[in-house]
Amino acid sequence: MSLQRNQDMSHQPLYLQIKEALKKQILDGDYAPFERMPSESQLMKSFDVSRITVRQSLRDLHAEGLIFTSQGKGTFASKPKAMQDVQHLEGLSEAMTPKGYETSARLLSIREVKPSKDVQENLNINGKEGAIEVVRVRYLNREPISVDTSYFPIAVGQKLFARDLSGDIFPLLENELRVPLGRADVSLEARSADSDTAKLLDINVGSPIMWVQRLTHDSSGKPVDYEYLAFRGDAYKYRFQIERDPSRNSGFNEVIK
Amino acid sequence: MSLQRNQDMSHQPLYLQIKEALKKQILDGDYAPFERMPSESQLMKSFDVSRITVRQSLRDLHAEGLIFTSQGKGTFASKPKAMQDVQHLEGLSEAMTPKGYETSARLLSIREVKPSKDVQENLNINGKEGAIEVVRVRYLNREPISVDTSYFPIAVGQKLFARDLSGDIFPLLENELRVPLGRADVSLEARSADSDTAKLLDINVGSPIMWVQRLTHDSSGKPVDYEYLAFRGDAYKYRFQIERDPSRNSGFNEVIK
Repeated sequence: MSLQRNQDMSHQPLYLQIKEALKKQILDGDYAPFERMPSESQLMKSFDVSRITVRQSLRDLHAEGLIFTSQGKGTFASKPKAMQDVQHLEGLSEAMTPKGYETSARLLSIREVKPSKDVQENLNINGKEGAIEVVRVRYLNREPISVDTSYFPIAVGQKLFARDLSGDIFPLLENELRVPLGRADVSLEARSADSDTAKLLDINVGSPIMWVQRLTHDSSGKPVDYEYLAFRGDAYKYRFQIERDPSRNSGFNEVIK
Repeated sequence: MSLQRNQDMSHQPLYLQIKEALKKQILDGDYAPFERMPSESQLMKSFDVSRITVRQSLRDLHAEGLIFTSQGKGTFASKPKAMQDVQHLEGLSEAMTPKGYETSARLLSIREVKPSKDVQENLNINGKEGAIEVVRVRYLNREPISVDTSYFPIAVGQKLFARDLSGDIFPLLENELRVPLGRADVSLEARSADSDTAKLLDINVGSPIMWVQRLTHDSSGKPVDYEYLAFRGDAYKYRFQIERDPSRNSGFNEVIK
């Protein structure tokens, strides 16, 4: 979002003018994805401003996802984010392998837990029943992309202890445990990474993450898998298509639920 | 996500132990949504720790969206986020009014601009044609919820100058401009708010925002409206349902695109 782009910006703070100038160059393709941006000193020189001003501009560009920094190597125009199409319910490997990505998972823990209220409500179990919790870090091209915390009812989850959990769990449920999957309820929100998540994803505490809650049902509608997925905001994009409700197109203005 | 919940935490940093204890109380419903949390001083006393430790715990809870702060009034267990179902293509008012929310929009600018490369590609126009840019702040129950920057081809956009833009643009396009709407391509990612956006949304610079790019086509498939929507991460959730591709449920393990 740029309110000032193409407007006379001379009344704006310097750092904003510089940010907008660089942003325009990135959006216009003058800097291609992965291309190195000028150094702080070069920018200070070309814009004739202080380091603090240059840093403020870069911080904003960084916040907008237009540049990224590689430790010791400099600042680069953004790499394109990995996009997952979510028209159908798919695991990370199912979705990304056909696009040429290498995916894997590192298992951090699998154990029986006393489920939180949220997990109880979603899996439709009570607090005494317990649930199986699986915590994994998922990797895309060997970079950590998400921390997945999944909860299963005991009957299903117990069978996961002896399984290979380095890939998607969905096909494992379907093909090995013979649990046919149906509908999933998904919610997405933007959050800041807490210390645990930041460490596992190799990002700074407070960096933006996409927080996904996904409740997957079996084909009969029974909940079988409730997950919290914390995706690195700088590396991942969800994409889907939606249709306008056809009944709206006939000139009706009422809201149909 | 909590790796340590239910585990022996005595070897963990104090602030993490306190954070996890409070988190558990919130998730278990001991603190209800909108309920006031104990003050920093009360927490220092009950846990017998320093203010700096308490603040670190609260900062993490805040980052996870479990608490929110009201200036001068204290800290509260999180208010539930507004949820928008995105099964169908709807404007904010269309989606949220039936749920009992009051929505409105404040127009910041409408003007002809030289479109950026991204806008050109999405609207399928060239740089010489120009585009109409509409920038608005959207409100939900009188709180700013998103900054919407929308681009229209000149032919459509020109007609918006004389219109009331304090509500949704979709029904306006359909009912007044007679542009029937069809499919939209939507992508979602988590970002940090830059200074402009943060100011308009009344949040801190760097706070998480949900960054939405939405390209809406008319019913013949021609692009008519390309938007950047920046939603407050602490106030808004996207929700949808997806189905497992039925061909997966028959025991096949192959990936079908």
